[in-house]
Amino acid sequence: MRTILLILEYDGTAYAGWQVQPNGLAVQEVVEHALAEVLGHEVRVHSSGRTDAGVHARGMAAHFQTEANLPLKAFREGVNALLPQDIAVRTVREMPPDFHARFSARGKCYRYTIYQHQVRSPLAARFAWFLRGSLDLDLMRAAAEALVGEHDFSSFRSSGCAAKTTVREIFSIDISTDNGFIHIDVRGSGFLKNMVRMLVGTLVEVGLGRRPVEDVAKLVAGADGMLCGQTAPAHGLCLQEVWY
Amino acid sequence: MRTILLILEYDGTAYAGWQVQPNGLAVQEVVEHALAEVLGHEVRVHSSGRTDAGVHARGMAAHFQTEANLPLKAFREGVNALLPQDIAVRTVREMPPDFHARFSARGKCYRYTIYQHQVRSPLAARFAWFLRGSLDLDLMRAAAEALVGEHDFSSFRSSGCAAKTTVREIFSIDISTDNGFIHIDVRGSGFLKNMVRMLVGTLVEVGLGRRPVEDVAKLVAGADGMLCGQTAPAHGLCLQEVWY
Repeated sequence: MRTILLILEYDGTAYAGWQVQPNGLAVQEVVEHALAEVLGHEVRVHSSGRTDAGVHARGMAAHFQTEANLPLKAFREGVNALLPQDIAVRTVREMPPDFHARFSARGKCYRYTIYQHQVRSPLAARFAWFLRGSLDLDLMRAAAEALVGEHDFSSFRSSGCAAKTTVREIFSIDISTDNGFIHIDVRGSGFLKNMVRMLVGTLVEVGLGRRPVEDVAKLVAGADGMLCGQTAPAHGLCLQEVWY
Repeated sequence: MRTILLILEYDGTAYAGWQVQPNGLAVQEVVEHALAEVLGHEVRVHSSGRTDAGVHARGMAAHFQTEANLPLKAFREGVNALLPQDIAVRTVREMPPDFHARFSARGKCYRYTIYQHQVRSPLAARFAWFLRGSLDLDLMRAAAEALVGEHDFSSFRSSGCAAKTTVREIFSIDISTDNGFIHIDVRGSGFLKNMVRMLVGTLVEVGLGRRPVEDVAKLVAGADGMLCGQTAPAHGLCLQEVWY
């Protein structure tokens, strides 16, 4: 039995998220159908985690098992020929039998992109959150410092989150600018449901001057009754990489 | 009577081009409808030129005339609120009465984007031509030199081209790379129908080693019976700017 890791890129606009859902097409289904056709048998793909409806990926990781004897490159080409334009397998790797895309993951990087301008940009509309207000990035960076490290992130998960523990480690948060775009790169051991989008929504409130920097440390400390910021829209988020 | 210039950005994927067509929705129609609603009267917009179906714009220029007494900013905001996500007015300017978006134009810049990789990229699929082969950019730059200057470009226009003269001036062609993307920036006085896409298709054949560099100079000189390369796909092309 071979264990094969796929690194997938997708434009999530048209999908109900990674995981198979009752309401709408999931990326996972589309990938499993293409794989089954190439392999000649039904297959279940196990990902490093889910992405929400509308979230994109540059490096989603998922593995599956097969007895099929195909060379990796032929396999990648065959699957890509069957996948729609908005999904592709970028890399295929043979892994040891005990590898699991979720349980073997050491960390992930998400990038959140904001387009800050007076006027919206149609060419950026699919991949960036359009914000008019001027963001103070220094305030956002100062607030982000309180998030880095191992913390209980229960203030930053949505009501549907089923995780057993809410302790996660954030390795780093980097905020950079590029031609009117602001990128917030969040690296961590793992993330709760909607956590990155809730962190970004909170940092944006700080950057707009609507919340003091200290609120973020208070939220991390679990201040009574304090709520985090709005959940930033899905389309600005992209799963960049999963580390093993 | 006021003469107002609009600078428009659009993702052309969903449209049958700039100009009103019998077969499919044109960007121009959508813009005229939004303008009419804000101005309270029917309006005809005159652009710097057409863009083909599927071509994008970062800086399409178009003017119209009105008696409406609206401040420019309120006007921009009102129109953008009515336009769909894939079209926006980026800038609005008051122009002298004799201004005409087409006849006053001194030049234009188009950018053609190629994504060169072994595997296609879903996140780049709307805006870049995916090419697997390795392009020799030095050969392409050498071939492009023969295009710069004032020439008869009749070898680089499609059969439907109705232009009276086929002489145009290309000011410059710059080929640059950025993270797997190749940008071909073509600046010129004006362009024939499909001209930029035919230039790009020809330069790509040179870059792939399928045609000698000298072919381009021969095409410009009008070599008997020689045909230019394939017309590069529309979705890689973007009208960047029009100069006045």
